[in-house]
Amino acid sequence: MNVREMSMDECEDVLRRCRYGRLALSYEDRPYVIPMSYVYADGTVILHSRPSGKKIEIARRNSNVCFEVDELEGQRWRSVIVYGKAQLSGSQEAKRKMFEAFMRSGIGGHGGKMFTWDMLEKMDMCVWEIKAFEITGREGIW
Amino acid sequence: MNVREMSMDECEDVLRRCRYGRLALSYEDRPYVIPMSYVYADGTVILHSRPSGKKIEIARRNSNVCFEVDELEGQRWRSVIVYGKAQLSGSQEAKRKMFEAFMRSGIGGHGGKMFTWDMLEKMDMCVWEIKAFEITGREGIW
Repeated sequence: MNVREMSMDECEDVLRRCRYGRLALSYEDRPYVIPMSYVYADGTVILHSRPSGKKIEIARRNSNVCFEVDELEGQRWRSVIVYGKAQLSGSQEAKRKMFEAFMRSGIGGHGGKMFTWDMLEKMDMCVWEIKAFEITGREGIW
Repeated sequence: MNVREMSMDECEDVLRRCRYGRLALSYEDRPYVIPMSYVYADGTVILHSRPSGKKIEIARRNSNVCFEVDELEGQRWRSVIVYGKAQLSGSQEAKRKMFEAFMRSGIGGHGGKMFTWDMLEKMDMCVWEIKAFEITGREGIW
């Protein structure tokens, strides 16, 4: 099983190409991981969620997160890991920043439906900004 | 976005159907998450890896793990989370148990290639057994 480290450019290509990943959190050393859609822009992973719930409670207590994105092409897999701290906000500025990152990415929104600012502006939501302090990636054959 | 809790039978169907998931670990409340192939049998997630490396080091220090499996069918997503403690072993008995679980599952091995006992017997590897103490699942529309 040949595994190689990916370059930063290759890691960012995967982060720009994919639409959802898995967010890992931890509280009192009990890990928790869930799938989330995201957009990547300028070294930052931006997520959004409802304004309350288990992941928010955990992230408020411990902002250390690890976000993982992977892809499988035939038997070739790539996995990229982003380490950072989650900053949570429900402000209009945070929502605006998320909206603009989604628009620039060409990804749009959920399931291919485009987000509109009218829709987001009124929505009670939490925006997660994860500024990467380390990004690593590996590629191998399954 | 309608989200519903899945029954235990539905969760186990997803765990039996899928071939890889994401393993979350944590050390000193710094989470770590990686994709891994697995097999599910009798309330236990069985993984295998090389006998050394970052994930082994973390799991030896803190055996609490969270294993996540998800699937996307059109716009419908399902996500199943297994909480447990990782038991690591490189013994022939652990390898045999893993081999038999893979054989019974009909999944075989990596990328569609079948494992053979001859191959596993000689391989220096670590088998991870995660006996679930809680399994939860959710289904929704993306």
